[in-house]
Amino acid sequence: MSAVERLFEAVARGELSPAEAAARLPEVELAQLGDAALDLAREARRGRPEAIYGEGKTPDQVARIARRLLEAGQNVIATRISAEAFREVEPLLAGLPLDYAEDARLLRIMPRPVPRRSGLVAVLCAGTTDLPVAREAALTAEFHGSPVELAADVGVAGLHRLLGRSDLLRRARVLVVVAGMEGALPSVVAGLVKAPVIAVPTSVGYGAHLGGVAPLLTMLSSCAPGIAVVNIDNGFGAGYLADAINALGDGVAG
Amino acid sequence: MSAVERLFEAVARGELSPAEAAARLPEVELAQLGDAALDLAREARRGRPEAIYGEGKTPDQVARIARRLLEAGQNVIATRISAEAFREVEPLLAGLPLDYAEDARLLRIMPRPVPRRSGLVAVLCAGTTDLPVAREAALTAEFHGSPVELAADVGVAGLHRLLGRSDLLRRARVLVVVAGMEGALPSVVAGLVKAPVIAVPTSVGYGAHLGGVAPLLTMLSSCAPGIAVVNIDNGFGAGYLADAINALGDGVAG
Amino acid sequence: MSAVERLFEAVARGELSPAEAAARLPEVELAQLGDAALDLAREARRGRPEAIYGEGKTPDQVARIARRLLEAGQNVIATRISAEAFREVEPLLAGLPLDYAEDARLLRIMPRPVPRRSGLVAVLCAGTTDLPVAREAALTAEFHGSPVELAADVGVAGLHRLLGRSDLLRRARVLVVVAGMEGALPSVVAGLVKAPVIAVPTSVGYGAHLGGVAPLLTMLSSCAPGIAVVNIDNGFGAGYLADAINALGDGVAG
Amino acid sequence: MSAVERLFEAVARGELSPAEAAARLPEVELAQLGDAALDLAREARRGRPEAIYGEGKTPDQVARIARRLLEAGQNVIATRISAEAFREVEPLLAGLPLDYAEDARLLRIMPRPVPRRSGLVAVLCAGTTDLPVAREAALTAEFHGSPVELAADVGVAGLHRLLGRSDLLRRARVLVVVAGMEGALPSVVAGLVKAPVIAVPTSVGYGAHLGGVAPLLTMLSSCAPGIAVVNIDNGFGAGYLADAINALGDGVAG
Amino acid sequence: MSAVERLFEAVARGELSPAEAAARLPEVELAQLGDAALDLAREARRGRPEAIYGEGKTPDQVARIARRLLEAGQNVIATRISAEAFREVEPLLAGLPLDYAEDARLLRIMPRPVPRRSGLVAVLCAGTTDLPVAREAALTAEFHGSPVELAADVGVAGLHRLLGRSDLLRRARVLVVVAGMEGALPSVVAGLVKAPVIAVPTSVGYGAHLGGVAPLLTMLSSCAPGIAVVNIDNGFGAGYLADAINALGDGVAG
Amino acid sequence: MSAVERLFEAVARGELSPAEAAARLPEVELAQLGDAALDLAREARRGRPEAIYGEGKTPDQVARIARRLLEAGQNVIATRISAEAFREVEPLLAGLPLDYAEDARLLRIMPRPVPRRSGLVAVLCAGTTDLPVAREAALTAEFHGSPVELAADVGVAGLHRLLGRSDLLRRARVLVVVAGMEGALPSVVAGLVKAPVIAVPTSVGYGAHLGGVAPLLTMLSSCAPGIAVVNIDNGFGAGYLADAINALGDGVAG
Amino acid sequence: MSAVERLFEAVARGELSPAEAAARLPEVELAQLGDAALDLAREARRGRPEAIYGEGKTPDQVARIARRLLEAGQNVIATRISAEAFREVEPLLAGLPLDYAEDARLLRIMPRPVPRRSGLVAVLCAGTTDLPVAREAALTAEFHGSPVELAADVGVAGLHRLLGRSDLLRRARVLVVVAGMEGALPSVVAGLVKAPVIAVPTSVGYGAHLGGVAPLLTMLSSCAPGIAVVNIDNGFGAGYLADAINALGDGVAG
Amino acid sequence: MSAVERLFEAVARGELSPAEAAARLPEVELAQLGDAALDLAREARRGRPEAIYGEGKTPDQVARIARRLLEAGQNVIATRISAEAFREVEPLLAGLPLDYAEDARLLRIMPRPVPRRSGLVAVLCAGTTDLPVAREAALTAEFHGSPVELAADVGVAGLHRLLGRSDLLRRARVLVVVAGMEGALPSVVAGLVKAPVIAVPTSVGYGAHLGGVAPLLTMLSSCAPGIAVVNIDNGFGAGYLADAINALGDGVAG
Repeated sequence: MSAVERLFEAVARGELSPAEAAARLPEVELAQLGDAALDLAREARRGRPEAIYGEGKTPDQVARIARRLLEAGQNVIATRISAEAFREVEPLLAGLPLDYAEDARLLRIMPRPVPRRSGLVAVLCAGTTDLPVAREAALTAEFHGSPVELAADVGVAGLHRLLGRSDLLRRARVLVVVAGMEGALPSVVAGLVKAPVIAVPTSVGYGAHLGGVAPLLTMLSSCAPGIAVVNIDNGFGAGYLADAINALGDGVAG
Repeated sequence: MSAVERLFEAVARGELSPAEAAARLPEVELAQLGDAALDLAREARRGRPEAIYGEGKTPDQVARIARRLLEAGQNVIATRISAEAFREVEPLLAGLPLDYAEDARLLRIMPRPVPRRSGLVAVLCAGTTDLPVAREAALTAEFHGSPVELAADVGVAGLHRLLGRSDLLRRARVLVVVAGMEGALPSVVAGLVKAPVIAVPTSVGYGAHLGGVAPLLTMLSSCAPGIAVVNIDNGFGAGYLADAINALGDGVAG
Repeated sequence: MSAVERLFEAVARGELSPAEAAARLPEVELAQLGDAALDLAREARRGRPEAIYGEGKTPDQVARIARRLLEAGQNVIATRISAEAFREVEPLLAGLPLDYAEDARLLRIMPRPVPRRSGLVAVLCAGTTDLPVAREAALTAEFHGSPVELAADVGVAGLHRLLGRSDLLRRARVLVVVAGMEGALPSVVAGLVKAPVIAVPTSVGYGAHLGGVAPLLTMLSSCAPGIAVVNIDNGFGAGYLADAINALGDGVAG
Repeated sequence: MSAVERLFEAVARGELSPAEAAARLPEVELAQLGDAALDLAREARRGRPEAIYGEGKTPDQVARIARRLLEAGQNVIATRISAEAFREVEPLLAGLPLDYAEDARLLRIMPRPVPRRSGLVAVLCAGTTDLPVAREAALTAEFHGSPVELAADVGVAGLHRLLGRSDLLRRARVLVVVAGMEGALPSVVAGLVKAPVIAVPTSVGYGAHLGGVAPLLTMLSSCAPGIAVVNIDNGFGAGYLADAINALGDGVAG
Repeated sequence: MSAVERLFEAVARGELSPAEAAARLPEVELAQLGDAALDLAREARRGRPEAIYGEGKTPDQVARIARRLLEAGQNVIATRISAEAFREVEPLLAGLPLDYAEDARLLRIMPRPVPRRSGLVAVLCAGTTDLPVAREAALTAEFHGSPVELAADVGVAGLHRLLGRSDLLRRARVLVVVAGMEGALPSVVAGLVKAPVIAVPTSVGYGAHLGGVAPLLTMLSSCAPGIAVVNIDNGFGAGYLADAINALGDGVAG
Repeated sequence: MSAVERLFEAVARGELSPAEAAARLPEVELAQLGDAALDLAREARRGRPEAIYGEGKTPDQVARIARRLLEAGQNVIATRISAEAFREVEPLLAGLPLDYAEDARLLRIMPRPVPRRSGLVAVLCAGTTDLPVAREAALTAEFHGSPVELAADVGVAGLHRLLGRSDLLRRARVLVVVAGMEGALPSVVAGLVKAPVIAVPTSVGYGAHLGGVAPLLTMLSSCAPGIAVVNIDNGFGAGYLADAINALGDGVAG
Repeated sequence: MSAVERLFEAVARGELSPAEAAARLPEVELAQLGDAALDLAREARRGRPEAIYGEGKTPDQVARIARRLLEAGQNVIATRISAEAFREVEPLLAGLPLDYAEDARLLRIMPRPVPRRSGLVAVLCAGTTDLPVAREAALTAEFHGSPVELAADVGVAGLHRLLGRSDLLRRARVLVVVAGMEGALPSVVAGLVKAPVIAVPTSVGYGAHLGGVAPLLTMLSSCAPGIAVVNIDNGFGAGYLADAINALGDGVAG
Repeated sequence: MSAVERLFEAVARGELSPAEAAARLPEVELAQLGDAALDLAREARRGRPEAIYGEGKTPDQVARIARRLLEAGQNVIATRISAEAFREVEPLLAGLPLDYAEDARLLRIMPRPVPRRSGLVAVLCAGTTDLPVAREAALTAEFHGSPVELAADVGVAGLHRLLGRSDLLRRARVLVVVAGMEGALPSVVAGLVKAPVIAVPTSVGYGAHLGGVAPLLTMLSSCAPGIAVVNIDNGFGAGYLADAINALGDGVAG
């Protein structure tokens, strides 16, 4: 019951006059503003737990937040947990079903069952050095309930490798396309499929690549419609969004 | 019938020996490579006609391509058609049901019925000066079959305006969020909803806004997951993708 | 009276049971969320009317918004109204006390009396070509109630000009310092005074000046504390903030 | 007594003729120019001691400057003192009341009582990883005399967290808003309050965030007036300016 | 005969003693330094006349330089001659066999026969709006002696269009690949062929395309070896280099 | 034999009717699309093995790919193999004729004889600190069959050093010109020779050099035609392309 | 006589006691601060009049400032006066010896004789399109008293043209080297001479030239010492500095 | 005697006919081209030895080049020699008069007497953290013969510190002004003096300072004429140029 509801009751019970209630309204309203917004957000958070952004957090902070989320009945996903960080976090979470992927720097703890979407998320990546980001995307989409198939090393410099995966391109309900270097893969893929394409530039490259800015601009400037782009190396964001889109295909809101 | 199919027939009819067919295969295969790819692409194009990018095209070119698409049984959408350009294109397409939106610089010709999705695309925009891009997104999504509701002037500097549209936020299956200036709106919206958010930075602003680079970087760096970004002022791309995602909710591939 | 207040009355009058009121609460709360936020914002807007950002608005839009604000009992300030735009807006606002400054591209309509702060806002500008931005800042601060003194052409290449204005530097409660070219003036001024300094880079310059980016970076990197920076050419924002700070000195919140 | 004053006395005492005094004037004036300027600066420095910028200084340099300031009767604040640096500085300042905050990399030594402003400085920060910069701002404002309340983790992706702090927003005379990632928080806050907002972008983020350039541009491009921005990670500058503004509310110049 | 050679003769004829010759040597050497270098350059220029860069030149200057080159027995190629400029230049060059291509902004005057290479230069371009730059490349290569085939509109978003031109890809000795937008085409082409690829980014695009910087970075970061890049919109440079490479295949130096 | 060929045979043998073959065609075509593309690529790869990009690969990955290529009868070239990486890779490839150049970070294994071009590739570099990149280019060109002469330290600040190598400039069929700092060397060289010039900017420099962006822009903006540019520090790409161009002079395609 | 000097006299005359003088000192000192600084600056301005920066000034402003300077006995130099602006300024300055150079956009009025330095300023420029900036430099140096020789079209792509001017290179006491495109000329020149080189990048170029940023970075990154750089297109600044350096050779301070 | 001179003698002695000499001329000329250029450069190098750029050179390389220069009778200056590098170089140069400045990372070996200019070079720096760059400039100018006075910590935020050094400002024939952070100092200094000002931006700063780009742009955009700029942290270049200018005042060419 909200603070305002309690005021209703008090007014109805004659414990407060409407005037007195009005006098106390401002602070009640302010508190309620937060409550109402929380209410609004509650549904959005249901089934889609908040992720822990590991960068810049101490092992202690990561472990404490993870435990709090688990206690709230949620599964846990923590991004950007380096191997070193994991070694320190691991003992702090002893006894829990830790699922750590060193390449993707991703820690998942999934005591609760996860929904299983009917649609497929395809994660493609241009080169093997892009694999960690692609894996982060794949494991994130899986974490939220999407079946995933990952095809590595299908970069545009050897088109046959991509065309050899046409079957996968056709079967996917959503595609995550990860590419560093020149970042041309999403444009090529989007020209071959009807499904939405989420493009992820990576920091793999050097010189004029500018730490990922080159493929980022490439993807934003794509001449193929049906593409949207996430931040450089943001495999997590791509996997999250891919699952949200995939869920729609099962009639589940985002 | 593809070139290879015709070879089958010839072989079956005894007009060609398998050996002779094999000898002629290379050139046939090369041609077919294109055909096959076209085949692959054909489905993708079904119901989702190629758009005409109006920038840098002469009125003549626009009109000629439009007619060709119409003759192929497709509806037509042409982007970045300025009022001046439209005045020159209009007589060249006399007699056709031209639907021109000057603010969005969008020309649509829709003699064929359009599918009608069951889900709603919400298009939000931060300021009234962002409206043309928002309108481009809305009209594009509609063109492909999505019902659209557009809420203008819900920028973050007056949060109550956005919160006053909570109902729309909840009802939308996909959201397109358009913002110039600081581009903060998509982050705020994505924190309130579960549906996928397509963010569109606009070139509205000055100085450190750098022609849209500021909101672009903002949106890519968003701390809220579930957002993907299209190019600056790319309302068309956002509307196209929004509809493709929306279609999934009706069990229609991309 | 807010929607929730009206519910109180109805409950108190027995027209609604607490249960019925609770059932109608969600939609009322959503509406109220906006109302409450508006409430929160109402005080902020009191005496400090919303400005009209003229860029990209039609004369009609400017005139319509201006009239609406005037009818709401507010004074009007419209920025980035070019001389051409003003010529078209003027007849649409005939009969009103229009105060237009062509150099500052600022239109003010002030039928209501304006508060008069006790503190002084000093607006300094480095070169005469920076004057339009300085004037925008000065007229904006005045609009909100601050007395303003403007000293032009006190750039650092002729330090004596600045030092000759030491008296003004001392008397000001807040300073707005406007500079294009290398943008060094705010650093020098902030080293001479104790009052807060709002720095405004301008787009006056060429080449490595990069349209104002050079003085912007200069001001942000200043080695003198007590400076904060607004966007390139944003005289309005500087004048607005200067008045808000100035008001504090009279015990008036922001 | 200034050099010129001493000349007065000598002239009055007949020790120097006006002509002789005039002959010696140039060098005296030059020296005095500095003195006068120092004079001008003296008031500015009263109660607001010069800070030690720790970056690139040896422990020895830091300790020596600190001692000199203490001997001059001032309190000491040294920024960007890493934990390692502090370990080396600590023994060099043994016996002094060292107040070191490792997260904020701030060393304060406050043997002298500090003024106590009547107004409140609110420091908000978007994420927990922005906390060190927020803490630097808070401790700096406190150092100069401002009571501070710090609210962490009120980022725009979970708006309810911010709205839940509306009370703090209302009570603050000045706000420092710290945000990395997309840097949207200051715009949202400035839309809710009347008090001046000092925005601090942080280097927390990756990829298109460009080491803080993204939130910096965001904040400069804000559509909400009443914001000014300091350099990336410049918590010190924000805290310093916040106190200077806050002091005005008590009738204390800057 | 060079100045030094004339000195030889004079010494041999006894008109100058070796000592006198030595005395006059410095100035002769200085002049000769230029001559020698000119000598070195002479061969390089033979058959490959200097181009006229039309931008920023008056019609008069263009015409005068053109006449001078023609008189020296060379063919003329002038770049960046707009339609307006050509209208003014035309009467100044009346009577000459002017060959002007408005789309490519290229003026060629070829009274002298041009060598005819045995190899083919293929010029591919991604979109029809890239055609002017592609045409500039093609006409330039032709001007120097290369047979050219131009294939327009073979962008990566419709891969079948490119694959349908496999035959051309195979036959070309050198390829010029022109692309705006995301600039992915050269990478794809270089993955399909063995011949050298000269990539030309164009300024066709908007927003994050940054006037051609996006495809430029893309092409430089290409994961396919065998590509080199020229400046944005530099069709002339690409055509020139393509012919120089093509000439090698005929045993002709550069 | 391709899948389609097998269908021919089956049709010819009467095992399949043309209709049945047509029904099975789609999946066969898709598979074949890859095959055909591979076919297309096969010739391109003959004699020009794929390089291993060492950056970001584990020693294990490098060794495994190297062995696979050797087993396929190809020579091996691996780039960006640091001395540390080589120490770990070496034992994994024991017994093979490893040819490692620490300065160029290049590992070559060449059990198969390499073709020997008749033309010369000249590699010039401006300063001794540019030598590693120049060496990478030289060793790569050699690996593919080109004789190479490398001239170090011929930067433009001492023009005599370059002019003293005029003989080399004349004899080269292709030139690779490597330069950091201001990157002016390629322009000067291209003004002296007729042969194609491949320009390689390096990351040698500091400050406004921006990690190689300065010489990159310099080279792209060169006023001398006949230059094309590869990525910063991309000695491998330059050497590869130089050999491909050089091969043309021997009548060998790319 | 300064304000302080007048105080001396009054004290000596007994009109003021030293104490009274001390009481009036602060305001006198403040005023004097400016005076003293002016004094300091006076010598600097002698013979080197302030220039009028014409950009953004009205014809009226230009004429008024010019007349004021002339009345003060100075010659006048006004930069960035377009042909249009000059047509409007001309009648306002009728009767004066106007010396207007349209290409350099420079207006000079020199009724007073100008000093004549003994040393030579050489102004070199790479291309004919760089000539306006070179001319601005040359006319400015002349204005201040330096004899100037200008050599146009000596760009590095045709080295012989530069080497052919070795005599000029040797005779110059100071060199101004102007270059657009790749901006390599100053590095080459500085490697040939001992005299100071002032480098001026120009905005002549396109694409990766970025409006002059490419040659600017080139010049700053030059491997040849003895170069300093001024802003893009800043011929005035280069000519001014060249004369100031040249003056030193005659024993004239700056 | 040059190769051509020897040919003269041989012709005069009848050992070679003019025809034979002509036949051998080309190779002789080519060699001589270098010689002549070297000749040209010889004077430039006299008394101004080539510096060793230490960055990226091994201790061995540094020592070897140093010895070679010493043997050629020159003094040695090596830049960017870190303390670690010096520890390794020191034993390799045992017995030589090594003069190493750790802060400036500069190694000087000066067995030969250095000329002594009559003019003074003033080196000013804004903050103590800029001191290493200022010291590099000062030691370099001294190395070439200029007396130097260095004034540290005269940044614009405390103007009195600068004005207190007016005497130095007046006495200097050339000024080197070093500044990080906002880089405003050169503009202020150039407004106070007549002497040429060489501005050196430093990498001291953070955030929007962008590693020195902010003060670099500031200095290039300076509104005060008489300034030229060298690369970020290029104390060596500034000191070198300062001495070259200073030498002019003694009638010594550059």
